[in-house]
Amino acid sequence: MNEYAMLHIPDSRYCFAVGEKELVIRLRASKEDRGAAFFLLYQNKYDFYLSREKRRMERKYTDRLFDYYEVSLKLDDVRFAYIFQIEEDGKVFYYSEDGLTEDYDFSVGFYNFFQMPYINRNDLLPTVDWMKNAVFYQIFVERFAMGDVKKDTSYINMEWGSLPGSKSFAGGDLQGILRKLDYLQQLGISALYLTPIFRSHSNHKYDTIDYLEIDPSFGTKADFRNLVEQAHKRGIRVVLDAVFNHCSMELFQFQDVVKKGRSSAYYSWFLIDGDYPDPDRCNYECFASCNYMPKLNTADPGVQAFLLRIAVYWIEEFDIDGWRLDVSDEVSHDFWRKFRSAVKAEKPDAVIIGENWHDAYPYLMGDQYDSIMNYAFTKACLDYFARGTFTARQMAEKLNGNLMRNLDQVNRMMLNLLDSHDTHRFFTEVGCDKDILLAAVALEMVFEGAACLYYGTEICMEGGYDPDSRRCFDWEESHWDAHVWKTIQALAMLRKRDEIRNGAIRVAEEEEMLIVERSWSGKKLILYLNMTGQKKTIAALPAEVLCSNRALPGQKETELETKGFLIQESKEEMR
Amino acid sequence: MNEYAMLHIPDSRYCFAVGEKELVIRLRASKEDRGAAFFLLYQNKYDFYLSREKRRMERKYTDRLFDYYEVSLKLDDVRFAYIFQIEEDGKVFYYSEDGLTEDYDFSVGFYNFFQMPYINRNDLLPTVDWMKNAVFYQIFVERFAMGDVKKDTSYINMEWGSLPGSKSFAGGDLQGILRKLDYLQQLGISALYLTPIFRSHSNHKYDTIDYLEIDPSFGTKADFRNLVEQAHKRGIRVVLDAVFNHCSMELFQFQDVVKKGRSSAYYSWFLIDGDYPDPDRCNYECFASCNYMPKLNTADPGVQAFLLRIAVYWIEEFDIDGWRLDVSDEVSHDFWRKFRSAVKAEKPDAVIIGENWHDAYPYLMGDQYDSIMNYAFTKACLDYFARGTFTARQMAEKLNGNLMRNLDQVNRMMLNLLDSHDTHRFFTEVGCDKDILLAAVALEMVFEGAACLYYGTEICMEGGYDPDSRRCFDWEESHWDAHVWKTIQALAMLRKRDEIRNGAIRVAEEEEMLIVERSWSGKKLILYLNMTGQKKTIAALPAEVLCSNRALPGQKETELETKGFLIQESKEEMR
Repeated sequence: MNEYAMLHIPDSRYCFAVGEKELVIRLRASKEDRGAAFFLLYQNKYDFYLSREKRRMERKYTDRLFDYYEVSLKLDDVRFAYIFQIEEDGKVFYYSEDGLTEDYDFSVGFYNFFQMPYINRNDLLPTVDWMKNAVFYQIFVERFAMGDVKKDTSYINMEWGSLPGSKSFAGGDLQGILRKLDYLQQLGISALYLTPIFRSHSNHKYDTIDYLEIDPSFGTKADFRNLVEQAHKRGIRVVLDAVFNHCSMELFQFQDVVKKGRSSAYYSWFLIDGDYPDPDRCNYECFASCNYMPKLNTADPGVQAFLLRIAVYWIEEFDIDGWRLDVSDEVSHDFWRKFRSAVKAEKPDAVIIGENWHDAYPYLMGDQYDSIMNYAFTKACLDYFARGTFTARQMAEKLNGNLMRNLDQVNRMMLNLLDSHDTHRFFTEVGCDKDILLAAVALEMVFEGAACLYYGTEICMEGGYDPDSRRCFDWEESHWDAHVWKTIQALAMLRKRDEIRNGAIRVAEEEEMLIVERSWSGKKLILYLNMTGQKKTIAALPAEVLCSNRALPGQKETELETKGFLIQESKEEMR
Repeated sequence: MNEYAMLHIPDSRYCFAVGEKELVIRLRASKEDRGAAFFLLYQNKYDFYLSREKRRMERKYTDRLFDYYEVSLKLDDVRFAYIFQIEEDGKVFYYSEDGLTEDYDFSVGFYNFFQMPYINRNDLLPTVDWMKNAVFYQIFVERFAMGDVKKDTSYINMEWGSLPGSKSFAGGDLQGILRKLDYLQQLGISALYLTPIFRSHSNHKYDTIDYLEIDPSFGTKADFRNLVEQAHKRGIRVVLDAVFNHCSMELFQFQDVVKKGRSSAYYSWFLIDGDYPDPDRCNYECFASCNYMPKLNTADPGVQAFLLRIAVYWIEEFDIDGWRLDVSDEVSHDFWRKFRSAVKAEKPDAVIIGENWHDAYPYLMGDQYDSIMNYAFTKACLDYFARGTFTARQMAEKLNGNLMRNLDQVNRMMLNLLDSHDTHRFFTEVGCDKDILLAAVALEMVFEGAACLYYGTEICMEGGYDPDSRRCFDWEESHWDAHVWKTIQALAMLRKRDEIRNGAIRVAEEEEMLIVERSWSGKKLILYLNMTGQKKTIAALPAEVLCSNRALPGQKETELETKGFLIQESKEEMR
């Protein structure tokens, strides 16, 4: 046994409750140790010294170095003690808080068994059900569509369709989105994530001046109310952007401190080195190094109350369906705990999505967010589809490793994305290869979690880094590639299936192809991805194609393009 | 490099803030890789792609399999990105979120560097300063001393000094403790931990009937107020036992449910399967399998408010110095977060000590407890001192591994103990060998964290498991061993020294002896422990003995008893 490789941490992503009487246990081990059989020995903690149940663990995930064995249990008594038993070549090992041992003294197990001492209802992380198969559409509001033809358009300083600069205004607004709801519904979208819409001078509006007002260039509260209502009628949820790490220097409270310095009631709302904030010296903390976006002191009780009021207001008054949290990793755990309590008390199935680009496990244990923008998924897709730095095997290993960062519930709510307003366009990253774009969207749509399309992906919009990734949507249909559009639509529709909605996931490499299986109740959906540059024949029996780069739905097909994907349904028995 | 062994988890015990501008980074690696040099590459996360600082990491802890490298940093900008660089045999490796690699592309580091995105003041875990060198004395109140000679003694059913049964009452009370405060001060005690004192029918009082009243057999609120005041005058703090997981079935609220069933306002306070609780069937959740101790539903807002009121009341009204939390691992994280907020708002340096027998890291990140009863320390001491299953090397490795479970701040507040009302007496475990007892107490006193003596350790009290470990204190001085008493006193006094109070700790094995060093500001205190059964000569230059089994303070001594300890001061340069 490679003891160095073994890892288990109780009350963590390695042992977590998925219900009041149900938990999942994971054990990490070296891939070299596949010859061994892994078992869980468990019992109510008060009786563990007397007797134990024994359950075989299943190898479910594999990354570059490790296998992850898993077992799910339903229990009557949730005061749970356990250790692992490993059998290899007739030898028996035990793995406990004391590590790997050849003997284990059950009579003093209370000193070193692992435990999940109790499953407390108020520590549970319930899955926001609609996230499991959601198709999100991220809209950079200023550039999607202009609908309000009566508004004062004097702020517009670029022609719709020309290349934007960092200070360009093209005129996109809420009425524009409203007019396109039927379009989005047709595409198969079930949720919108809108970049900020509150009052702000910039085109991106991440520098908020008033969190309780819609920016007039985007519309009115009546427009927003109408948008949410009409979206809901079409089964489309609406998630807003909560920019709570920082604000605009024109926020009333910051301006009060500019005027009154330390004697302002809001002095403690910011982190100022001196009596007065001085933008020239930037003697206050701010976002990145942008002096026009002062950082809010989210440890301050006044700031906390202010922001929590905002979080609840837009749910209470407009029935929004969740928040995406900007720069959430620089805000405190303490604040996000209060945020979660406030939001979930108002609307339990409102989703909370952090903008953490890294492993965000400490935020995702049930007391803070539900989900994050899955930029680790983005990075893996860049490596596999765009840069060619990953083989199918490496991609499978990376995706498995990413899944093991979080609880099952979190994986089912992850916001998987290929690109956003903060990256290059994925289509540009893959050299404008439509087959590869579709293959990547197919992966996103079959994967566990919510899929998020950045606006215009379906019409092959191009763009480099900000501001180039924020071009205007081209509504001239004759410019679109109908095959790409319809394939993305077909993929989005696939998400309604039970296998996606509820199915277990298996990600593997087979014959240099990336395979993603989603299994549910004896049915299986299988995605084959080929990025080898050579045609591939699928070894499985010919089955009806649900979607692919080439074949039409309903055809039988076993051949995969040199760069492409194919999704089949299998009715074989589940393993 | 043994990549399997490498472990780093951001925002965890491997990367944590110790101040608003200060953090500690740990990296775990295989002991086989001592030939390599480990460095931290770091920068403000927004500039990481441009340039990095480089700092060598120090090997500070070693357990059975792993070395732990550590670096402490003081930063101006606490938006912190980092990866590790490892240099071995002219080769360079990088360790990031992607694991060990030979190359690292800094231009896309924002996808896979490690990060501590910001140090938020309200996420910090401040050290309760007085804990760092506290000498606790745990008192099982019913058996320590009887002081109130005027009380109704009809409940007493055993003679002071005879062997107790599980239902015995000997008469110990608060006035008894009060009378012994001078004794405790003389012994060097700086804090009392009292087992429960609230109204209850049992001798242990872990089944509370009224959390707002002192049990009459123990005394009155006036007695308790007097005890706390008099203790404080002597520099002795008082910590009470919070039994919040469960209560007595005679608690008013449970009795209300017994009478009214589902229509009781308190029905949701308990976890009942049916309309009425039925003790005969025990159709409600309870502590262990004790039907007379129903479990409180700490997810219920009414229960939460009730218990938080109690937590604050005894601080507000009686100025107690903290709470020890009974069966704390079965109560929710959510409740303990609220508990911490309430307690720390009332008294920031009140200590919160969980009764978690296992790795309690998820409770010890700053939002819940400060400390736990360190039963992992107890277990290691049993293996080394009592059972002989550990050599000095194994003991050093185990103690190092235990230290690596928690943040530095937590280690400085750990309640290290050899025994308690829930174990056998340690003196009995070591076969009543006084030299071994003293050696173990020496370890406890020199170790990082608070030391906790179970009442009567200083007079060599014996006892097996409950109720035998709860015998009456024998106040007949002629029965005591003066050498043991004075040595424990001398050890307790040593805790006042800066090396114990503030010093770094090093735990190692040298020539089959266990060595514990505490270093502070160029001074060093060194504990040598010999459990080999053979005399040992200390290799260091003869220095004055501060304390030992045999030599007198001030003597020069280099020889260590076959089973014994010796503490020297070294004024050598710190390494």
